[in-house]
Amino acid sequence: MLRCGRAFQRVLPEHHGLQQQARSLSQHNPSSSIHKVVFSGIQPTGIAHLGNYLGALRQWVTLQNESDPSTTLIYSLVDLHAITLRQPPAQLRQWKRESLAMLLAIGLDPKRSTIFHQSTVPAHAELMWILSCQASTGYLGRMTQWKDKTSGEKEGSEKLKLGLFSYPVLQAADVLVHGATHVPVGEDQAQHLEFAREVARGFNHVYGDGRVALVEPETIISSAKRVMSLTDPEAKMSKSHPNPKSRILLTDSAEEIRSKINTAVTDSITGVSYDPVQRPGVSNLVDILYHCTQGAGFEDQAALAKDLDGSSLRAVKRRVSDAVESQLRPIRERYQEIINNAQLLDDASTQGTQKATISANATLAKVKQAIGLT
Amino acid sequence: MLRCGRAFQRVLPEHHGLQQQARSLSQHNPSSSIHKVVFSGIQPTGIAHLGNYLGALRQWVTLQNESDPSTTLIYSLVDLHAITLRQPPAQLRQWKRESLAMLLAIGLDPKRSTIFHQSTVPAHAELMWILSCQASTGYLGRMTQWKDKTSGEKEGSEKLKLGLFSYPVLQAADVLVHGATHVPVGEDQAQHLEFAREVARGFNHVYGDGRVALVEPETIISSAKRVMSLTDPEAKMSKSHPNPKSRILLTDSAEEIRSKINTAVTDSITGVSYDPVQRPGVSNLVDILYHCTQGAGFEDQAALAKDLDGSSLRAVKRRVSDAVESQLRPIRERYQEIINNAQLLDDASTQGTQKATISANATLAKVKQAIGLT
Repeated sequence: MLRCGRAFQRVLPEHHGLQQQARSLSQHNPSSSIHKVVFSGIQPTGIAHLGNYLGALRQWVTLQNESDPSTTLIYSLVDLHAITLRQPPAQLRQWKRESLAMLLAIGLDPKRSTIFHQSTVPAHAELMWILSCQASTGYLGRMTQWKDKTSGEKEGSEKLKLGLFSYPVLQAADVLVHGATHVPVGEDQAQHLEFAREVARGFNHVYGDGRVALVEPETIISSAKRVMSLTDPEAKMSKSHPNPKSRILLTDSAEEIRSKINTAVTDSITGVSYDPVQRPGVSNLVDILYHCTQGAGFEDQAALAKDLDGSSLRAVKRRVSDAVESQLRPIRERYQEIINNAQLLDDASTQGTQKATISANATLAKVKQAIGLT
Repeated sequence: MLRCGRAFQRVLPEHHGLQQQARSLSQHNPSSSIHKVVFSGIQPTGIAHLGNYLGALRQWVTLQNESDPSTTLIYSLVDLHAITLRQPPAQLRQWKRESLAMLLAIGLDPKRSTIFHQSTVPAHAELMWILSCQASTGYLGRMTQWKDKTSGEKEGSEKLKLGLFSYPVLQAADVLVHGATHVPVGEDQAQHLEFAREVARGFNHVYGDGRVALVEPETIISSAKRVMSLTDPEAKMSKSHPNPKSRILLTDSAEEIRSKINTAVTDSITGVSYDPVQRPGVSNLVDILYHCTQGAGFEDQAALAKDLDGSSLRAVKRRVSDAVESQLRPIRERYQEIINNAQLLDDASTQGTQKATISANATLAKVKQAIGLT
């Protein structure tokens, strides 16, 4: 199921592409001396899984560590998107906290990056309303995810909540309110970023008066593949899959990792090869090994698979388990420290809200001035 | 044309009904000891006309002056609704200021009543988003005003902006975020208040957990008629009518009032009688006289008309002009003082924002807690 508002979550960059992006953000481009602002958001779904990490979160850390110091980095836990589908309040509360701890555990530094819960910065909702007066219902109705939702309903869109229809406008506001210049997104979100650009263009056309009130963000789309479910390798690894063995959580113990990888679905073909269509299970393991070892010295997954071809599947799985454990151990250990440190979490949260509020209010003030609200 | 978001604007109470409402708000009802909160909103369309005044604004003042001191009164200039239709920024800016001055000029006291511009209190937009996740698109699509808009468009609703579709949710948030218990509305807004109640009920059902997070407001609907255009008495008096002689502004001079009343469209039937359907022009003048003289000692407009029946139309128009001038002179004089007193306006605005922020944030905090956002 496509989950509405799971903004920008599915990004699995090739390792090399990732480094290239970070370099591009760290290099001074003489033709464009604008201040670079990276924005990305993820839903607070609690303890992240390997797909979240390799797909998006690791890139956030790389961008933080390799970008030029002048680049602003803003990462949001988009809790206002999380409520477009009903969920138990206690769970949301817990997941918000776990998600924040997770972002710190993977290495995001609240001093360098702005890390905040979206709902603590009112300017997101405020700009959302203002942009609602710019965005046409026709465009929103043609968005793929809305069409998917309405086509699944017997009675059409009647019972669907407004938030499921209008959330691309909130996503646009999320990005535009921080003046983001670069937004890493998964392919399924590219349409939403194009919508944000369209809204920004429309706003500037009507109200810009020669000045740019809203920045049109550039999309950073990765061509990399997704991490797939271990038990059902034709589906994406997901927190909502009923079988917990389908995913590796970033807090899984070495033993749990080994057990899940060992029972991962593969196929009965002899040997190892990289063929995501014919051999999704084996290829997913190769992908995971490749990404967890920064490419393991090979040019691509096919080359890695060729090298593995002499090994037994059991030996391959052991290598995958070891690689995953090496990646996750420091995260797991740091997470356990952080989740029990209420003061550290509260401080990080407060700091993030303060920095994000300043960033968002600066844009909102310009927008209100342009419209005549102030 | 129905103007979207012209929230709660068209209210023309019978004088007696109005007093009764104020009394009911001033009496302690032992069966319901809840804190009474009156909320009403009006679009900032600049200097108000007689229809705005007799229809809504005068009632606001009566409620202020006659309610029990424990009753909270909150009056909003709903500038976020004003932007659902495009308007020049400089005009909006000017109108916002003029509208605030007007509310003070008619006698609203910023110490007693909370008077504020909606856009200065972010909680309105924040609650709007939260309620968007409760409100069904089907219900919104069936709202009369949306249907009116889409049926007027050749290509249906395609090009219409999201704000025109979703603004009833913002209206609901306007009312609910202040925990309003009583909302004076015009008949054309009754549907929107019912929607707000529906949203509140739905929210409490899902998230209330036995407690009432959102108060279902009671509607105060007046059965009184509207003030009609002087030049086209089958249409409502309106700021958007191309002929300025169709309306009396609250700042019109005695001379302007006299001139507009004198040229008011009536009919060629001899004598005076009260028959809004057959004699809309004459009946409108009787209505205006009746309301501007607090009923002039008569039980209803028909009785007043009977008393006037011996007079010439010219004499009647003179009486109407005098009555209007008596009502408006103090408002006009006070308006001229206030509009040139920047400090007074800024102070009133700041005070209103502060009080409204406290009121709105109290509800928003409860709502966020109920959902699990905090």
